[in-house]
Amino acid sequence: MKITCSQKDLMQGITISLKAVPVRTTLPILECILIKAYGDTITLLSNNMEMGIETKIKGTVEKEGYIALDAKFFSDIVRKLPDSLINIESFNDNSVLIECERSKAMLAGKKGDDFIDLPDIDTDNVIKISEFSLKEIIRQTIFSISDNDSNQLLKGELFQIENDELTVASLDGHRVSKRTISLSEKYDPVRVIVPGKTLSEVIKILSGEADDNVNIYFENQNVMFEFQDTRVTSRLIDGEYYRLERLISNDYETKITVNKKEFQDCLERAALFDREGDRKPVILDISGNELNMRIESIIGNMNENIEIEKEGDDIVICFNPRYLLDALKAIEDENISFYMTNSKAPGIIRNDNYVYLIVPINYNTGAK
Amino acid sequence: MKITCSQKDLMQGITISLKAVPVRTTLPILECILIKAYGDTITLLSNNMEMGIETKIKGTVEKEGYIALDAKFFSDIVRKLPDSLINIESFNDNSVLIECERSKAMLAGKKGDDFIDLPDIDTDNVIKISEFSLKEIIRQTIFSISDNDSNQLLKGELFQIENDELTVASLDGHRVSKRTISLSEKYDPVRVIVPGKTLSEVIKILSGEADDNVNIYFENQNVMFEFQDTRVTSRLIDGEYYRLERLISNDYETKITVNKKEFQDCLERAALFDREGDRKPVILDISGNELNMRIESIIGNMNENIEIEKEGDDIVICFNPRYLLDALKAIEDENISFYMTNSKAPGIIRNDNYVYLIVPINYNTGAK
Repeated sequence: MKITCSQKDLMQGITISLKAVPVRTTLPILECILIKAYGDTITLLSNNMEMGIETKIKGTVEKEGYIALDAKFFSDIVRKLPDSLINIESFNDNSVLIECERSKAMLAGKKGDDFIDLPDIDTDNVIKISEFSLKEIIRQTIFSISDNDSNQLLKGELFQIENDELTVASLDGHRVSKRTISLSEKYDPVRVIVPGKTLSEVIKILSGEADDNVNIYFENQNVMFEFQDTRVTSRLIDGEYYRLERLISNDYETKITVNKKEFQDCLERAALFDREGDRKPVILDISGNELNMRIESIIGNMNENIEIEKEGDDIVICFNPRYLLDALKAIEDENISFYMTNSKAPGIIRNDNYVYLIVPINYNTGAK
Repeated sequence: MKITCSQKDLMQGITISLKAVPVRTTLPILECILIKAYGDTITLLSNNMEMGIETKIKGTVEKEGYIALDAKFFSDIVRKLPDSLINIESFNDNSVLIECERSKAMLAGKKGDDFIDLPDIDTDNVIKISEFSLKEIIRQTIFSISDNDSNQLLKGELFQIENDELTVASLDGHRVSKRTISLSEKYDPVRVIVPGKTLSEVIKILSGEADDNVNIYFENQNVMFEFQDTRVTSRLIDGEYYRLERLISNDYETKITVNKKEFQDCLERAALFDREGDRKPVILDISGNELNMRIESIIGNMNENIEIEKEGDDIVICFNPRYLLDALKAIEDENISFYMTNSKAPGIIRNDNYVYLIVPINYNTGAK
């Protein structure tokens, strides 16, 4: 194999590929990036067995072939080369010469025959969405997946398509996050669970531009995200996801409307008192047009008032301040509406596009 | 004690104080910042027993007194408060009320009587230097102190004043770094060893402005750096520092002049081949007007040529690439002069203001 490409293009491709290089693996070949050069196309491949990435880079193929190079070292070397043209040539003994200006590095490569290829995905049924929308909807829901649970379902996010709407949701034992956006056309129904790890890497690679599109393909046990010169393929999580409509009630006894930033800032101060080893809830004491927020732990206590608009009953209810904060950070609205029923039923922050449900903490507030 | 100050001023003072709060200590009071309010002056104090910091903050003293607050928690709380006025009031039970706008936090403080005060330093003999110069001269020499050596002398930097010159130097078993700058007036001779840990914190606090001055006071076993509203006091290291002139020879057989950036970039690539567990030197093969740089390790090899100007003999000499890089990073000149004698004698990068001496590695280069 012999190719020429710019340092910049190569480095960009390597940076994307690294996202699917496993940190630990029993298959040493997967610690490599596979470079493939056929026709006039140079492709970099990486695969951690749950997710694989295939990314094309601009350049010239002088001799077809393929070779695998240790991902970390290849990346370190290319990063330090000047912003100029790079020649990469592999030899029969799998050694690889990397030339750039007056610099010559010779690396020990691997044949690459035992590199595990990505599954072939049928590209007939495509779902189109902007990079911006996909990145946002994942970012705004991914924080409530449960990563160290024995329940596999909780490690992924629900992707559900119905007509021209995409809903993405996650839940752990304490909360539910759910977002819905409109798609530009109608599609056949889809209801699958995409691994959280795949999604958290996908949002790192997505440019997030509103003008760039992502093509999504679902097939059997796999999903493929295709954007610009990159394809990310991932297995799906097996199983039937929870029926969210059964968890999220529309009834409420109290509704408050509050300035999001004020509520969030106040919670951030409260969260400081909720120390590891001394988990304390924040008490929301809603009465009249005032929300009194209190927290008390061994290191001290905090007491703060926020102006609100209220419909319905007064209520005293306790939450883990971090769960409320996670939800608020995912919301961009100036004001939010927070629905509550009683001190033991979930509180729900919602509008037409999102639902954030949080289970309260049963705590003796000393309230009458 | 009762004081009022702005969140910004208080946060700035806390950030400085944190540099002398010990990470681990057997004296819990030292995990605190001591707030002192007397006359119209509010002072924050911290002390890790090697180094202490005293910094003044703008504000109003409404009631004199002092109180100690857990440094980490105090800092977390103040950071989250809005950019507004903060009232701090301590009570008889050592609890402390922190009020800011509608937020009220109550913290458990400590009396502070057992806080260890900083030593009193006589301020008669002052040495003046700009923040910029002090920061630079420390930054350019501190990397070659030896931090995990049983030899205490190697853990500090020599500060030597002779007439109107300040020399700062450090050395470990493999290299010497030495810088000299002119002072604006003549002083009595000083020759002391300042702990590296103190200096690395001092350069973090110094603004580095050329127009701001630092006053330095040496007294018995202590040094004090005074700048803006802050005083950093540190013990000195006991002992007689090495005679550097005995280590640094002026003789040489080969002198090369090379573009610093080109040399540094090339060494950075070479350093990638010098992997942990497979320490390999970089070979400098100087012949005619070319420097050939080579390195070879289990992961591959590199070979690169750089144009140089040479006086004297050809030479092949091996170094730890990281030691050369440390020195080059501390130099701002476009071109550097590198003096060598033979493959076993130290190489010296020098000009009138600096000396970087590096001991070569004895390595079979296969050279004839």
